[in-house]
Amino acid sequence: VTGPAVADVLRRVLAERRAEIADIDARLLPQVDRIIGFVLGGGKRLRPQFLWWGWRAAGGPARGHRAEAALRAAASLELIQASALVHDDIIDNSETRRGEPSMHVDLGVSAAILLGDMALVWADDMFHAAAADLEAGAEAAGAWAGMRTEVMAGQLLDLHVSQYPDAEPLAQAEDARRVNRFKTAAYTVERPLHLGAALAQADPALISGLRRFGQQVGQAFQLRDDLLGVFGDAEITGKPAGDDLVEGKHTVLLAAARSAIIDPVLLAELDNGIGRAVANGGSPELTERLAAIIAESGAVQFIEAEIAQLMATALAELDGLPLPPDAAAALRDLAGAAAARIH
Amino acid sequence: VTGPAVADVLRRVLAERRAEIADIDARLLPQVDRIIGFVLGGGKRLRPQFLWWGWRAAGGPARGHRAEAALRAAASLELIQASALVHDDIIDNSETRRGEPSMHVDLGVSAAILLGDMALVWADDMFHAAAADLEAGAEAAGAWAGMRTEVMAGQLLDLHVSQYPDAEPLAQAEDARRVNRFKTAAYTVERPLHLGAALAQADPALISGLRRFGQQVGQAFQLRDDLLGVFGDAEITGKPAGDDLVEGKHTVLLAAARSAIIDPVLLAELDNGIGRAVANGGSPELTERLAAIIAESGAVQFIEAEIAQLMATALAELDGLPLPPDAAAALRDLAGAAAARIH
Repeated sequence: VTGPAVADVLRRVLAERRAEIADIDARLLPQVDRIIGFVLGGGKRLRPQFLWWGWRAAGGPARGHRAEAALRAAASLELIQASALVHDDIIDNSETRRGEPSMHVDLGVSAAILLGDMALVWADDMFHAAAADLEAGAEAAGAWAGMRTEVMAGQLLDLHVSQYPDAEPLAQAEDARRVNRFKTAAYTVERPLHLGAALAQADPALISGLRRFGQQVGQAFQLRDDLLGVFGDAEITGKPAGDDLVEGKHTVLLAAARSAIIDPVLLAELDNGIGRAVANGGSPELTERLAAIIAESGAVQFIEAEIAQLMATALAELDGLPLPPDAAAALRDLAGAAAARIH
Repeated sequence: VTGPAVADVLRRVLAERRAEIADIDARLLPQVDRIIGFVLGGGKRLRPQFLWWGWRAAGGPARGHRAEAALRAAASLELIQASALVHDDIIDNSETRRGEPSMHVDLGVSAAILLGDMALVWADDMFHAAAADLEAGAEAAGAWAGMRTEVMAGQLLDLHVSQYPDAEPLAQAEDARRVNRFKTAAYTVERPLHLGAALAQADPALISGLRRFGQQVGQAFQLRDDLLGVFGDAEITGKPAGDDLVEGKHTVLLAAARSAIIDPVLLAELDNGIGRAVANGGSPELTERLAAIIAESGAVQFIEAEIAQLMATALAELDGLPLPPDAAAALRDLAGAAAARIH
């Protein structure tokens, strides 16, 4: 399935929801159009693609009414994503998103909370309508319930470990991995695959195999995100370079750097520098210096090696699953794209 | 159905969700227990009761597996309510709720956003599982979708008319009524009745009749809320007396007072006094003086007359519906309680 196909489904469903809003009060349309535009403006459609290929991997048809329902279920993930990003930007004090002012900067925190809520309930409506059309049953509903609880719990955990960070680098890395797993990895790869396969009534063994593959790929995706958050190009990420440093994110990358740096003076420079960046927004000079400290620690190679290891495990898992050849090839490509963030 | 029966269902379902959170990370339990405690500590269970009696009105059984599923659907409304209150308190800067610090005062805005999100998705999971057990179909799913969109749109509209109030009292009253209808009335009475009847596969005529009854009762409920927001006892409301004034809420009551006051000096005292109360939190002397101005305007009698009129219309509508006698009696009692807020 292609990004434009996902966008077409979203455009059609959101036009119906927009008409409901217009019936309630047309003065709401400028704000509601902001969240609709945000959803339609999304780029990679990575999560819908993983759901789609989980569906195809389990023998779901590529055309016809059932395929259209699966595509609607896939597209609903973009609304979950939009809700999570809008609320997350409030929580993280992120001022930009996709190179533009984030929703709460533009419309205020109150409207951003409500527009995030609206995207969240529309996601549910869209998914459940598709699942009902497919007579999908308890497995798909359970995956949907589990996914959203994991995302919220992962966000809460992120908040908790940011407020009460463990000073010990290994424990800090463990916490960062756990946040990654629940906050991002689960709803990016593992659960979309689970949902797609469950909607196609896959057998439990195939679902388990796809989920194991998805766990590895999801972790690789998030480790790539850690690298982009410090060294990334604003053109690719839509966020200023070094944004993770300015937000004081407790990433696996940072924990790896702190663990690798032996010189206490350098470690203090890193920790104090991040404290200053968080406090005052961080000058380009400061974030460049901090990025250099992290790079020189060897943490980048460490993370790249971990990504490579995760991908090798994931692809070996994939090879062991009884998949149609086109689904196997598509999942291999998608996994590579997720870990490299090339699109 | 009784409040304790609703609480039992919530306790059982939320214990399962709590176990999922414990599996993700036990450090989250203190925060998650706050939202669970908030849901379990709710009092009136008015919304679940309207859903239940919509179900019974349409011939749904009082006992057995189907009744248990209807009760779960009813109880899920308490999670919608919890989510709306937690997010609303952030938006309104409300410091207290049920006589205690509101969630964001206690845990911070970020955690309160996420806990409200969690309640919202758990509501969906709970409702959809119950609807699936009842094989309820599109009518119930449509009512659920419509209800949540109305709540969010009503909150957005409240925000909009607070930021850009119409200076003209009649237009202001019209806006306040529209906010009431979507933000509160719909998910308090009309949609719960709709949901209960749809879950019991009611015919369209009965659903329409119950919804018309519910619209009137819901408006009466919200007008009573307006009166309690200015003249209410903190023991009953869980909020300080005059809280609506301090929050600068644009209520129908206030619009009625502004419309009734002819003396421009008195009107200026009211408007400027509310401005001061919003700016500095409002001394008891100030809110008492403002309440006295509103009372002396005759607006209270105007609102009481409107409540009486709404209730007369609602009960006439109810009398015209072909309902089982116990359901008719229960709906009559519930409507009276909603309009009087006696429990």
